[in-house]
Amino acid sequence: MWQYAPPLREFRFVVEELLDSDRQWAEIPAFADLGRETIAQILDAAGHFVTETLAPANAAGDAEGCVYRDGTVTTPPGFVQAYREYCDGGWPALACDARHGGQGLPQLLNAVLYEMLYSANHAWTMYPGIVHGGYECLRAHASPQLIEHYLPKIVSGEWLCTMCLTEPQAGSDVGLITTRAEAGMDGSYRISGSKIFISGGEHDLTPNIIHLVLARLPDAPAGTKGLSLFLIPKYVGPEDCEPNAVYCDGIERKMGLKGSATCSLRFDGARGWLVGEPHRGLAAMFVMMNSARLYVGLQGLGHAEMALQNAVRYAHERMQMRAIGNSPTRPRAAGAADPIALQPAICKVLMTLRAFVEGERAVGLWTAHLLDVAEFHPDERRRSDANDLLSLLTPIVKGFFTENGFALSSAALQVWGGYGYLRDFGIEQTLRDSRAAMIYEGTNEIQAVDLLVRKIVGDRGRRVASLFRVADDAAQSCRDSASCRELGDALNAVVIRWRTVTQSLIDEAAVEPATAYRVASDYLRLAGLCLLGVWWARIARLAAERLNEPFYRCKFDTARFYFDHVLPEAGLRLALIDGRHAPVPSIDLPA
Amino acid sequence: MWQYAPPLREFRFVVEELLDSDRQWAEIPAFADLGRETIAQILDAAGHFVTETLAPANAAGDAEGCVYRDGTVTTPPGFVQAYREYCDGGWPALACDARHGGQGLPQLLNAVLYEMLYSANHAWTMYPGIVHGGYECLRAHASPQLIEHYLPKIVSGEWLCTMCLTEPQAGSDVGLITTRAEAGMDGSYRISGSKIFISGGEHDLTPNIIHLVLARLPDAPAGTKGLSLFLIPKYVGPEDCEPNAVYCDGIERKMGLKGSATCSLRFDGARGWLVGEPHRGLAAMFVMMNSARLYVGLQGLGHAEMALQNAVRYAHERMQMRAIGNSPTRPRAAGAADPIALQPAICKVLMTLRAFVEGERAVGLWTAHLLDVAEFHPDERRRSDANDLLSLLTPIVKGFFTENGFALSSAALQVWGGYGYLRDFGIEQTLRDSRAAMIYEGTNEIQAVDLLVRKIVGDRGRRVASLFRVADDAAQSCRDSASCRELGDALNAVVIRWRTVTQSLIDEAAVEPATAYRVASDYLRLAGLCLLGVWWARIARLAAERLNEPFYRCKFDTARFYFDHVLPEAGLRLALIDGRHAPVPSIDLPA
Repeated sequence: MWQYAPPLREFRFVVEELLDSDRQWAEIPAFADLGRETIAQILDAAGHFVTETLAPANAAGDAEGCVYRDGTVTTPPGFVQAYREYCDGGWPALACDARHGGQGLPQLLNAVLYEMLYSANHAWTMYPGIVHGGYECLRAHASPQLIEHYLPKIVSGEWLCTMCLTEPQAGSDVGLITTRAEAGMDGSYRISGSKIFISGGEHDLTPNIIHLVLARLPDAPAGTKGLSLFLIPKYVGPEDCEPNAVYCDGIERKMGLKGSATCSLRFDGARGWLVGEPHRGLAAMFVMMNSARLYVGLQGLGHAEMALQNAVRYAHERMQMRAIGNSPTRPRAAGAADPIALQPAICKVLMTLRAFVEGERAVGLWTAHLLDVAEFHPDERRRSDANDLLSLLTPIVKGFFTENGFALSSAALQVWGGYGYLRDFGIEQTLRDSRAAMIYEGTNEIQAVDLLVRKIVGDRGRRVASLFRVADDAAQSCRDSASCRELGDALNAVVIRWRTVTQSLIDEAAVEPATAYRVASDYLRLAGLCLLGVWWARIARLAAERLNEPFYRCKFDTARFYFDHVLPEAGLRLALIDGRHAPVPSIDLPA
Repeated sequence: MWQYAPPLREFRFVVEELLDSDRQWAEIPAFADLGRETIAQILDAAGHFVTETLAPANAAGDAEGCVYRDGTVTTPPGFVQAYREYCDGGWPALACDARHGGQGLPQLLNAVLYEMLYSANHAWTMYPGIVHGGYECLRAHASPQLIEHYLPKIVSGEWLCTMCLTEPQAGSDVGLITTRAEAGMDGSYRISGSKIFISGGEHDLTPNIIHLVLARLPDAPAGTKGLSLFLIPKYVGPEDCEPNAVYCDGIERKMGLKGSATCSLRFDGARGWLVGEPHRGLAAMFVMMNSARLYVGLQGLGHAEMALQNAVRYAHERMQMRAIGNSPTRPRAAGAADPIALQPAICKVLMTLRAFVEGERAVGLWTAHLLDVAEFHPDERRRSDANDLLSLLTPIVKGFFTENGFALSSAALQVWGGYGYLRDFGIEQTLRDSRAAMIYEGTNEIQAVDLLVRKIVGDRGRRVASLFRVADDAAQSCRDSASCRELGDALNAVVIRWRTVTQSLIDEAAVEPATAYRVASDYLRLAGLCLLGVWWARIARLAAERLNEPFYRCKFDTARFYFDHVLPEAGLRLALIDGRHAPVPSIDLPA
């Protein structure tokens, strides 16, 4: 009864109509030949794999979890087979460069693929989910020898990779990392230390695993400026078959994502190779983390999509009570009941999910498209603008989408009533799985500080000005159309307030640095709500031309719903930010 | 590391100072002799039981869960022992009438006891949790013979009881119940049908289990007006040792509350006895449900308290990053970090928990106190006023507290970062356990409709006027004090808006009945936020007299925090209700 149907029509709407892919890609030589038919075929094939192979392995993955034994990890039933099919289909290589064996397709399509993967089976997708980030990191920073040896196997999916930052005493604060590295005689290094929370640190999907590990060289300065990045394979040597001194000491018992092995790894003088320059490891790894954070955001979207489509179906199947307004007081026979989809409270929950999901899909895929622009557009200014926007969109997408993914899964769970709390109905797994994304890849609190303190206050508003320009364009375009004028005015009004409060925060930061930290989470939500407003305005503008077609009518109505019933939360966030000077007492330990 | 410390000082503050128990109980002959020392002794003894016996069984209860085998249920390790101690301590009888073997103490103290029980071990507390409701129901509606035979054993804890409403096709809509009852020759009935989601429907804590079951007599009208209530023991006969035809066909696999057996029960011509009048079963059961719903609300409070005290402790132990404002840019040695409690985002999360927890405790215990007034106060008008208030407070406490319990547990989980997602740290169990309370005893959506449509629109605002009077008194009392004037003004302002929107909703309901249903959930949150405002105002007024003592200073500061940083959500709820005429499209199944 828990089923996934790939929303292919929705994807094509965003890619082809909203983002206008034909026109965009015509400007980028790398994608100039990409036609709609090719895209449709790719998405269709992805949809088949996800529906037929991946989604069916999700529930068992949760029920059986990973099994740890003597340093090895066995993934749940169906995971190995699904991974084999995934590689056979060429999916790991989708957005990788042809020089390394990739298909050279846009990140935009990779993001569509990943939304589907996350909807269908988040735990499984944790294994390949880090690959694109690892690929980007190595391609940008590794030596030609490392690239030649490792990259093609990562691109083909033959070997998977990991990202090893966290240590027991160093979580949000990577500056506290103590893993050590010492230079060997042959250009390699010996790395020793313990890492925790390593997703896919050990498993049975691939014969080798390539760890990207932050550690300190002997002469390293303290803090984050003393971290270097190392590539440490599970197997080394000319044939890649000599075991390296990397040990998996256990896997975590978690609330969800039970099919994903969260490993404690011990490097005991393991052989590794420097990636990038000494002490510049965090910068190298940030290449990985930016794309990784977009993908974590897509997890929130994927969960909300799954919750939405299953809740809509259940709400039409489940008969309880008469529809309100349909003379609820008349006596009725036992068994006489209407679908709960007709209850106003349920209907509003479902529409709220739709408004978030479809708005987030637009924002998320736009962000992925900007990754393509930033990398491949021939115009340097376009690339630089895209990078500016990406630096802001990355924390917003990560923080806002994952918080919504959890909150919306919980809202959807209510639709099932008591059944929602049972393991057999799927939604409670979605709720548990979705919770992790608010924590890893930088907690949502860290994302909020990254957005407001580092990215906005940090450059005194230079980059955020581009985001305001995007918002202004969307508002203006709506105000030029009779049927969208109201939405345009509403968007304009909230963006003016967003801009004003942003300037105040920038101005105050020099005098009172703690204030921005205190309201950062409210600010991130404000930005997320405004961004969804921007894209719903664009969708409405586009749909307004074809209101006689049900698909576009529905888009237009959902845009109105978003502005009427969801966007008001921006007023709350503004009020909380406006009240930022009210004291927050410190909280002591009880005596 | 997951520990419970009973907040005894907090309980005594609410009971003795805020509710002024000495003066209250002096007015009620049943409690006139109850002194502070007795109360302190009772709470102290309860605290010992909860801390030493009940809390330690919580984690294993989750890990091992209940075991179902051939119709029997084995509870997790420690549950039987804890139940024995609970009975030996006389706790089931605390607020029961001395005529039936009870201790005749106020419900107010029973509510304090239950907050502790729920904090420490929600799953275990599901077994005795329904007892007080069952006791009230039988005492009010059962025949003298049934009372004489069953009530003393229920009061002593020797037998537990259940509440059997739900059937697969009849959840929120009890009018769809199909379980049938036929009169036998001896005054008893034969009941046949299947019930699901029966908490404690089968277990090994007591030798007999007394089921209170809704079913239909042969001549019953359709819908809710054709339901009769039956008492059906697991064992019958003169010695209570003949097995009745009640079968447990299985227990549910759930997201949480794994130590609580959620049973499918089959009545296969089981012998039972009518409780109350034929076809009036729902009214009889509502006696049970009103007190049950208050207790479900206390589950939300108990979880939030547990999350708060553990998060505060962890935030002081965990060292990551420097405190903000404490020259965050200076270079620092590895290992140099401050407790995360000093991070503005964490501090705000902790204060938000405290503001909700302490405010809810005041509201929850006031509600329990009103149960005492409604039953025992000699003045009929006071009893009737208390009943009016209770009819409104019950859905608010149930819906608002349980939603907050889950949301605050999730907020607290972020304090642990990645550790919060692990099974070993306790908070993820709290999050999973707390989720159920939003669903059972009437989903929170049902509570919202009960509050706004049935209770407020239903009597055209008669009862809610009493609630507004309480709010006005609190605001006025603050405005009379220099140090509380601002809070009084703020409370007054929000209550005026609450009152205005309430009147509009009442006026509109005749013309447009669906509107109230659509905004009911926002209205319930608005009412909950205002109520907490009322009690924070009262707390501030009281604390303002003793600001040189840290305990009262902290209360006063938390009241201000509530008004500055939490109450603004009322503005959002008002905005959403004000926007109630904006259309909500219906959501169709995909083509």
